[in-house]
Amino acid sequence: MNSILVVGSVALDSVETRAGKSEEALGGSATYFSLAARHFAPVKIVGVVGEDFPARHREMLEKGGIDLSGLETAKGRTFRWSGSYTADFNAANTLDTQLNVFAEFDPKLSSAHKECPVLFLANIDPELQMEVLSQMKGPKIVAADTMNFWIDSKKAAVKELLGRVDILFVNEQEAQSLSGADGNVAAAKILTGWGPSVVVIKKGEHGALLYAGRKVYPFPAYPKESIEDPTGAGDSFGGGFMGALSVDPDLSNHSNLKRAAVYGSVLASFNVESFSTERLEGLTRDALDARAREYVELLSVDFEPVPA
Amino acid sequence: MNSILVVGSVALDSVETRAGKSEEALGGSATYFSLAARHFAPVKIVGVVGEDFPARHREMLEKGGIDLSGLETAKGRTFRWSGSYTADFNAANTLDTQLNVFAEFDPKLSSAHKECPVLFLANIDPELQMEVLSQMKGPKIVAADTMNFWIDSKKAAVKELLGRVDILFVNEQEAQSLSGADGNVAAAKILTGWGPSVVVIKKGEHGALLYAGRKVYPFPAYPKESIEDPTGAGDSFGGGFMGALSVDPDLSNHSNLKRAAVYGSVLASFNVESFSTERLEGLTRDALDARAREYVELLSVDFEPVPA
Repeated sequence: MNSILVVGSVALDSVETRAGKSEEALGGSATYFSLAARHFAPVKIVGVVGEDFPARHREMLEKGGIDLSGLETAKGRTFRWSGSYTADFNAANTLDTQLNVFAEFDPKLSSAHKECPVLFLANIDPELQMEVLSQMKGPKIVAADTMNFWIDSKKAAVKELLGRVDILFVNEQEAQSLSGADGNVAAAKILTGWGPSVVVIKKGEHGALLYAGRKVYPFPAYPKESIEDPTGAGDSFGGGFMGALSVDPDLSNHSNLKRAAVYGSVLASFNVESFSTERLEGLTRDALDARAREYVELLSVDFEPVPA
Repeated sequence: MNSILVVGSVALDSVETRAGKSEEALGGSATYFSLAARHFAPVKIVGVVGEDFPARHREMLEKGGIDLSGLETAKGRTFRWSGSYTADFNAANTLDTQLNVFAEFDPKLSSAHKECPVLFLANIDPELQMEVLSQMKGPKIVAADTMNFWIDSKKAAVKELLGRVDILFVNEQEAQSLSGADGNVAAAKILTGWGPSVVVIKKGEHGALLYAGRKVYPFPAYPKESIEDPTGAGDSFGGGFMGALSVDPDLSNHSNLKRAAVYGSVLASFNVESFSTERLEGLTRDALDARAREYVELLSVDFEPVPA
């Protein structure tokens, strides 16, 4: 089994949505990613928290089978983010960001980390992402996420990073601002030209586009009647995608990529059912597979053309 | 073969998009609908144009097999709409609307019109939609479209209309403002409670949701690298959907509904490739079926769960 290394944030989030609010609840890209990916493969987190990080979060993650040997505790406070969402959940307004110990995050990989065949570089400084990548010993698949903050402030580094990754995850605004293209398909085409053979463009409630080998596979979101909190949906998608992909990391196998997108979509749909990581924590593999089958059934069209 | 009657606008549109502009080009809901639906069934338009309506448009539609016996020429000028689209094509700004002869539109159906088994009430005054419906002799399927203008000004009439139709087409903002629900799935659920057994929520570049029998089938848009003009995409979707459905108007057959949504999506994707009706005019049934097959192939997932 190919183990997965994720390098990213472990945070305490305070979030307000139309459905309610959470205060200093567990969050962070590496957290959501690993809770989604663990269903398919052993997952190791490399990250940093402060001395105030609640022991119960560590316990929950470890009970969930996630390897925290690379989750350093540094002097100081844990990274905090607080934000609110518009009524339609389509936009997050950041109210406050306190980097705290994350400001000095300088990941040093152990030899076990360096040997992981699958690497996910969650959304952190692209220079740090490259620094981590340089420490790895020939991973089979490298995937990265990024965000507007880095695209605006360190575009050259983001572009350099893209030359060294196999899979890029970005949302649609980021894809367009990074590529300079109008429209997702044109953006994905340009971005694959810079390195990654697969680009996944995340569109929130509208799903995702999977671009591979000049083919564009649209995946609508699993339809939900109500959602609680969209925080972490993108990283849950990434975790489900990379987890499912890790069992057969052949990026030229489009059936395999599509299955990964199905699991990504389904993990994102579970994640938005609760604040913080609550729904992902209790999620069983059976419930996950049942919704994956249901989602595929909704998408499937037994097509015969209308007789001419 | 079940013939289709469409009651709606035939217009001259002036449109500006990122890709260019058109001046007084053929447009209107009944026009786009019928050019899409004609691939599957005989289509008859009931509408009105002014004395200035170019003869070449009439000829093109008639050559395309569309019955214009119900397209009245009234004293005065043809309905005109002019608008521009935002760079991402997601919002239309109306610059000018001149109802002209459309202001006095009072459709009187001939006996051939009254016998049509399939009726599409394009977006016009809901009181007129009901007036047309009252003239029909037991149609097998009645579908209607509406828009914010009527939802805001004549909500009670829209609601009354819904009690008399089988299929409702609306865009997502309209679905939410009409139902009062947040979110498309909740909106579709409420709207089916008011009458229609099928609700299609149109989401522009993000595709459509098909709601039937308490199931929600999401259809992403056929991915396009560039588009010229989104005007008429919703009515092209409606025409493709109703055309494909007309060959077997059993709304409890979800395979049939899904096939209709495939053709709707594909006709919308062709429509946006040109200004006005240019692309739809030249579209062959072979090209249509080829893209429908390609679209279904993009959506299809040959799913086996990841081994646990």
